[in-house]
Amino acid sequence: MTSLMFFSLIGFTPMNSMARAEAATPPKSAAIEKPLMFVLIHGSWVDAGFWKETAAELRLMGHEVYTPEYAGHGGVGSTQLGSVTHEQMTRSVVDYMNRKKLKDVVLLGHSFGGSIVQKTAEQLPDRIRRLVFFDAFVPLDGQSVADQFAAPVRESFEQLRKSSGNNTISLPFPLFREAFVNTATLAEAQDYYTYVIPEPAGPAFQKLDLKKFYSLDIPKSYLFLTEDTALPQTPFGYHPSQSAHLGAYRYIAGHGDHMTTAHKEPKRLAELIVQASRD
Amino acid sequence: MTSLMFFSLIGFTPMNSMARAEAATPPKSAAIEKPLMFVLIHGSWVDAGFWKETAAELRLMGHEVYTPEYAGHGGVGSTQLGSVTHEQMTRSVVDYMNRKKLKDVVLLGHSFGGSIVQKTAEQLPDRIRRLVFFDAFVPLDGQSVADQFAAPVRESFEQLRKSSGNNTISLPFPLFREAFVNTATLAEAQDYYTYVIPEPAGPAFQKLDLKKFYSLDIPKSYLFLTEDTALPQTPFGYHPSQSAHLGAYRYIAGHGDHMTTAHKEPKRLAELIVQASRD
Amino acid sequence: MTSLMFFSLIGFTPMNSMARAEAATPPKSAAIEKPLMFVLIHGSWVDAGFWKETAAELRLMGHEVYTPEYAGHGGVGSTQLGSVTHEQMTRSVVDYMNRKKLKDVVLLGHSFGGSIVQKTAEQLPDRIRRLVFFDAFVPLDGQSVADQFAAPVRESFEQLRKSSGNNTISLPFPLFREAFVNTATLAEAQDYYTYVIPEPAGPAFQKLDLKKFYSLDIPKSYLFLTEDTALPQTPFGYHPSQSAHLGAYRYIAGHGDHMTTAHKEPKRLAELIVQASRD
Repeated sequence: MTSLMFFSLIGFTPMNSMARAEAATPPKSAAIEKPLMFVLIHGSWVDAGFWKETAAELRLMGHEVYTPEYAGHGGVGSTQLGSVTHEQMTRSVVDYMNRKKLKDVVLLGHSFGGSIVQKTAEQLPDRIRRLVFFDAFVPLDGQSVADQFAAPVRESFEQLRKSSGNNTISLPFPLFREAFVNTATLAEAQDYYTYVIPEPAGPAFQKLDLKKFYSLDIPKSYLFLTEDTALPQTPFGYHPSQSAHLGAYRYIAGHGDHMTTAHKEPKRLAELIVQASRD
Repeated sequence: MTSLMFFSLIGFTPMNSMARAEAATPPKSAAIEKPLMFVLIHGSWVDAGFWKETAAELRLMGHEVYTPEYAGHGGVGSTQLGSVTHEQMTRSVVDYMNRKKLKDVVLLGHSFGGSIVQKTAEQLPDRIRRLVFFDAFVPLDGQSVADQFAAPVRESFEQLRKSSGNNTISLPFPLFREAFVNTATLAEAQDYYTYVIPEPAGPAFQKLDLKKFYSLDIPKSYLFLTEDTALPQTPFGYHPSQSAHLGAYRYIAGHGDHMTTAHKEPKRLAELIVQASRD
Repeated sequence: MTSLMFFSLIGFTPMNSMARAEAATPPKSAAIEKPLMFVLIHGSWVDAGFWKETAAELRLMGHEVYTPEYAGHGGVGSTQLGSVTHEQMTRSVVDYMNRKKLKDVVLLGHSFGGSIVQKTAEQLPDRIRRLVFFDAFVPLDGQSVADQFAAPVRESFEQLRKSSGNNTISLPFPLFREAFVNTATLAEAQDYYTYVIPEPAGPAFQKLDLKKFYSLDIPKSYLFLTEDTALPQTPFGYHPSQSAHLGAYRYIAGHGDHMTTAHKEPKRLAELIVQASRD
C-alpha cells in the first residue's frame, strides 16, 4: 500500500495543497444529519429475514432500507444449492441494485456478507456512498473467506462439507449457541436456530481477486460488537484481525455478539449502524 | 489439535450425518432457564471468603453455590504453607466434591483457580456440566501458571519467593492497588487488602501435565472483565492470551478488574457468571 | 528491564523483607479521597483550549487544574512554527511548572502530549505524584512519536510535511472525521474541526533519548477510550501497543474516541481521569 493510498482509503488523497485545501473543507450542506439509503447484505446460514427487526428500526429513524436476497439463500438459486458460486451471490446484489436503480447507497455486509460487499463495490463503485463492514470478513486480495478462519475451524468445516453429501455445510446447534449467540439465553438461542439454513459450501473456499477493491477510494467503516467471537476463532477475530485489512476506516464498537443483537436489541444495533454509516 | 477436536471442545463431535442431526437438535427440556449448581474456586492471595458477596447474589437468583477451600488457604494445610503442592490443592477440591456427592456442576475458577479447575476436571469429568474460566489462567499442557506471566513479573515473583524465607509470596500493596483493584478507590483498595494473605510459592511454578484436560469434551466458557490487567502483564493478558488456549469456548465480557468487581458489584458479576454458565 | 525495575515502575521495589513490609502497608492518611493537582498536556493540532470543558468538570469536583500551552501552539513560539523542537515544547511545560512552583502534581498527557510528559518527568521527577497517559504515545528509548505509526501513515505525513512548504502538517478533515472524532455526528465533527490548527512537523519525527524516563519509579496510569483509533493506525494502537511500553501501570478504560469525548462528555472523561489519577 502506498502512502497516497492510505488516506485515499477514507476518501482523501493528499496530492497537492490545492486538492488538500478542497478536501479539508467540510461540506456545509452535510451539516444536518440526513436520511440514508441502506443496502444490507446478510451472512451465511441465514436469509434476508435476518434483517427484519433492524431494518424496521432503521426505517422508524427515517432511513430507506433494502435487504436483497442472494443466490443460495431464501429460494434464490436453491435448486442447485451445492453449486452456487461467489460470483452468483455478488451478481444477485448487483442485479438488485441495478434493477432498483439504487445510488448514493450505504452498502453494509455482515459476516460472510463482507466479501460480497467487497465484490459488489468493485462493480458499482459510483453508486456507493460508504461501505460498512459489520462483524464481517474482509479477505485480502487472493484470499478466501475460509482463509480468515483458524486452521482447526477451517478443517472442521471441510469435514462437514464432505459429510453433507451435497456440498453444503450445516451449522451444528452447539457451535451456533456457543459462538454465534453466546450472550443469548438458551431459549432465545433455540428460537433463533429455527431460522438457520444449510449454507452452500463453495463460496467460502473460493480465492477472491480483490485488487480492484483495494484500489477504490470509497469511505469505509468497521462496526464491531465486542463479544462476537464467531467463526474466525482466531485470537483477534473480527477486530482487529479483519478490520485492519481495510487500512484507514472509521471504527464504531458496541456490546453484543454475532447474531443475538440484531434480534434482541435491534434499536441499539440500528443506532450503531447509523454511527458507522453517516457522513 | 485435530479438526474433530475443535468442535468437541464445545461438546460437539461432527462424526457423521446421523450424529450431527442428533447434536444439531437443541434439547427441548432445556428451553426453560433453570437453577444451576456452582462450585467456585478462588485464586491466589485470598481464601474462599472472596466469594461471599457473589455467592449470596447467585443464591438470591435461585442457584446452589459451593465455595470449597483448598490447601494453603483458609487454614487448610496451613501448618506447612511453603510446601503445599498443586496436587494437594486439586485434591482439596476433588475430595470436597466427592464428600458432598456433587454432580451436574458448573465448575468456575478465578485467576490461579483456572489451573485447579483444569486438574479437577481431569479427575471428575462426568460430574461437570460446564467449566467456566473467570479472568483465569489456562496453562497449556506442560506449562506452569507462572509461564503465563511476562518475564519481568515472573522474575520479580521468584525474587519475592526467595526473600520470604518460607517459600511463600506476599502481594505488595502497590502492586495489588495498581494491578488487582485498579478501578477501586484507595479506601476500597485498603479495605480489600486486609483480606490478602501470603500465597504458597510452589504451585504457580509447577509444570502441569494437562494432556487429559485438553482431550475432554466438556463445554467451556471464558468470562473476562475488560479492565483486568492482573498478573499476566502481557499485552493481551487474560483475553485473548489465556482464553485462546481453550480453542472453542463461549465468550462473555463485562467491565471490571481482577478483584474489585466481586466485592463492589457482586450482583452484576453474578449475572455475568450466569451468562457464562447456563446451557 | 530487570525484575527489580518491573515493580519499581509502579513505585515499589522489592529489595528485602523490611522494605517490603513497609511498602506493603497502605498509608492510612491517604484513606480519604482527596483533591488532586492536575497539569494537563494537550496533543497535536489543538491548543490548550482542548481542555476547557474537562478542566471545568475537574474543578467542579474540587481539583486544581493547570493547562499550560507549549511551543508551537496557542501563539507560543508561533513566529517560527516550522522550526519548533521537542526540546522547546518540553521547556514550555518545565518553565511553567517552575514558574508556578507546582509540586505533588498529576501530570497527564494526551496523544502526542505523552512524549512531552515523558521528557518533563525526566527533568522534574520530584514534583510529580503520578504520570497519566491518556490515549497517548509512549515512545521507547531512542524512538520518535512517528515511529509508533503504521508505515503508510508515517509516509503520508512525510508527504503532507513536504507539500506544506513550511514544515508543518495540516490535518485533512476526512482523516480528522474518520479517525479522531469517529463517534461524533458530522455537525459535531465540523464544529470541533474549527479549532484544528497546523502542527509543527519536526517534533513527531525526533528520536528521543528516554533512558532516564525508563529508570524513574513514578507511578503510571494508562487511560484508554476504547473507540480511539487515531494516528497509530496499527492493529493494537494506543492499547496495548503504546500502554505496554510502560511495563507496570494502572489501566483504566471507557468508551469514547480521540477528541469527541473531551468536548461531548467532559464529566464522564473527568471521572475516568480521576480513576486513573488518584492514589
